[in-house]
Amino acid sequence: MDNFTFYSPTLFAFGDGEEKNTGALVKRFGGTKVLLVCGGGSVKRNGAYDAVTASLKDAGIPYAELSGVQANPRSGKVYEGIEIARREKVDFLVALGGGSVIDTAKAIGVGTLYDGDFWDFFAGKTKVEKTLPVGVILTIAAAGSEGSDSMVITLEEGNLKWGAPKTDVIRPKFAVLDPRLTCSLPAYQTASGAVDMMAHILERYFSNTPDVILTDRLCEALLKTIVEAAPRAVANPDDYAARADLMWAGMLAHNNSCGVGRVQDWASHQIEHELSAFYDCAHGAGLAVVMPAWMEYVMDHDPMRFARMAVEVFGCAMDYAHPENTAREGIARLRAFFKGIGMPTALSDVEGAKAEDIPAMVDHRAEKPNGFPFGGFVKIGPKEMEEILRITAR
Amino acid sequence: MDNFTFYSPTLFAFGDGEEKNTGALVKRFGGTKVLLVCGGGSVKRNGAYDAVTASLKDAGIPYAELSGVQANPRSGKVYEGIEIARREKVDFLVALGGGSVIDTAKAIGVGTLYDGDFWDFFAGKTKVEKTLPVGVILTIAAAGSEGSDSMVITLEEGNLKWGAPKTDVIRPKFAVLDPRLTCSLPAYQTASGAVDMMAHILERYFSNTPDVILTDRLCEALLKTIVEAAPRAVANPDDYAARADLMWAGMLAHNNSCGVGRVQDWASHQIEHELSAFYDCAHGAGLAVVMPAWMEYVMDHDPMRFARMAVEVFGCAMDYAHPENTAREGIARLRAFFKGIGMPTALSDVEGAKAEDIPAMVDHRAEKPNGFPFGGFVKIGPKEMEEILRITAR
Repeated sequence: MDNFTFYSPTLFAFGDGEEKNTGALVKRFGGTKVLLVCGGGSVKRNGAYDAVTASLKDAGIPYAELSGVQANPRSGKVYEGIEIARREKVDFLVALGGGSVIDTAKAIGVGTLYDGDFWDFFAGKTKVEKTLPVGVILTIAAAGSEGSDSMVITLEEGNLKWGAPKTDVIRPKFAVLDPRLTCSLPAYQTASGAVDMMAHILERYFSNTPDVILTDRLCEALLKTIVEAAPRAVANPDDYAARADLMWAGMLAHNNSCGVGRVQDWASHQIEHELSAFYDCAHGAGLAVVMPAWMEYVMDHDPMRFARMAVEVFGCAMDYAHPENTAREGIARLRAFFKGIGMPTALSDVEGAKAEDIPAMVDHRAEKPNGFPFGGFVKIGPKEMEEILRITAR
Repeated sequence: MDNFTFYSPTLFAFGDGEEKNTGALVKRFGGTKVLLVCGGGSVKRNGAYDAVTASLKDAGIPYAELSGVQANPRSGKVYEGIEIARREKVDFLVALGGGSVIDTAKAIGVGTLYDGDFWDFFAGKTKVEKTLPVGVILTIAAAGSEGSDSMVITLEEGNLKWGAPKTDVIRPKFAVLDPRLTCSLPAYQTASGAVDMMAHILERYFSNTPDVILTDRLCEALLKTIVEAAPRAVANPDDYAARADLMWAGMLAHNNSCGVGRVQDWASHQIEHELSAFYDCAHGAGLAVVMPAWMEYVMDHDPMRFARMAVEVFGCAMDYAHPENTAREGIARLRAFFKGIGMPTALSDVEGAKAEDIPAMVDHRAEKPNGFPFGGFVKIGPKEMEEILRITAR
């Protein structure tokens, strides 16, 4: 186990109706004027918007509003939010939505207190040192941004979907996690969210660091739970228990509980960012395509690790004579699981995607500073990235 | 799953040599003058004291000192610490030690800022609202106080070993967890610590709340890890990987990661507090005696829960025709595990303990305000407490 720092100072208020406490939570963490960041109409339809704004009003907290944030959030909304935050002199951001809305709020938070262009943080030109505090009311179990130290934004000029360097500064002050708010999600989004959180765990699970047995087991506990809960939530959107398992698992998947003390991989995320940059697909859907392909490509590096996943997560029988068979079975089971909850598992399943774009995706990645190599488990260069994408196009 | 709030804002700095950053951590959390709280000579022998004081000096942070805190920490040291903290006008407490030292520092922290007697918090006369910030350098994996919202002190007058009501206010600002510092622990203390953390998990695991599958699995992941790591650390004190697993598991066992969203039990802890109040035994050793007896006594309430522990933690085969046999086997395996790492498992194994004291222990418990009934899984009154203690004396 490597030395590590773990710092997850977010207060999580979990359960049915907890969004009614938004105003009190903003006050508890010192907010007096809020910029409310949200997406489209779903939060208005499911009552979340009304509950949150009523709670702010009850607490006597005035708020400005930035709505219309979309999936794969774009820089335009960040610039717009920074301008409103400065003009209205807000001292607190409330993100009402999923990962895209939260990441937009995080970027507004650091950008508002910075003299230059907020993209400087993403481009590595400067380091995040302060932010306006951010609170969250989560509406989809997926990205884990509600408890994480990361944010991903797409710069419209150049279509660059980049993550900012991880920093504890941007972890939210509080996050309201009400599983009930996710019951109105379409099956496709529920499934994409489940894949996203599984990927967050698997990117940490595949590691060369020895002696991380405890975090391995925590990873497996979460993965097994998601594998059971996701099909239930897809089949029966109102299954509160399944929604609750997914929501808490999604947070734990990405606050680094499952990643401490080890070198992490993150190659599949890097590859997927090109998929969603090119085709604007749901992040989870892109990961369902990329991750099993990545696994097949790198499996020989450590077959026992994949066999472990097969046995511990999917209950496969161990083939002691030929562990690589067990490893392959685990990957097949993962892909079948994704397919079973309605996710794409091949490039051709993604709307608009075509094999001819593969070289362009690799070239686009290469434009990123330090774009290659990436991956903590197996190093991925342009050639490897192309070969992994070729597997998705078989 | 019940609604819950989870708030664990402690920064954990984990790994070999991390205590060298103590001064920087105190500064990061605003401390300018420290009261260093510690126990006996072990921290001087293993180099921890020198490393911590050197780090404070390097950071230019002056410190006063309170040493001599003992196991089952007593009120006298708290009063002494409050007096020093006020006289020296310290604004930060650093606890260098295990649960007893940390709990003493926590009690000094709340007592220093309170006009009345610090025991008022324990007696439920008033509520904790503020504290001097506390930082921790942990020297034994056991109590989990480094990340917890609780503290236990024994009032010398009346020999009352009571816990204060849980409050997030007293969670430490930071905790340094260096597994290397625990390599000099005697086997008996290592084993007592392992039992203590297992009890923290099991007190949460035995619950009547439905739909808590995710936290059940997290509990099992931790329990399995401790069951493997503890014998290794007992057999080979310098096994860093085993020490690291125990240290991180001990924190997760008690920061409530494993207890969210469910009614918890805590009956065994209540009973054990009388054992250590009467015989000043190690808390973990007392729990090794009490917990299997409690399990036998309450097993019929929900045999499948005990069967689950048997299968998932100890790898027992499920007796589908007679699950109660599996349940019993699990309890037997737990007791054998405790015995195997050198723990007492009967009242007669505890120095000075005798069956004739049982009624007096029950009476002593009854003196506590709202002393009976206790237990969230099965309600324990005086009769039940006596019968459980009788099992330990069989």
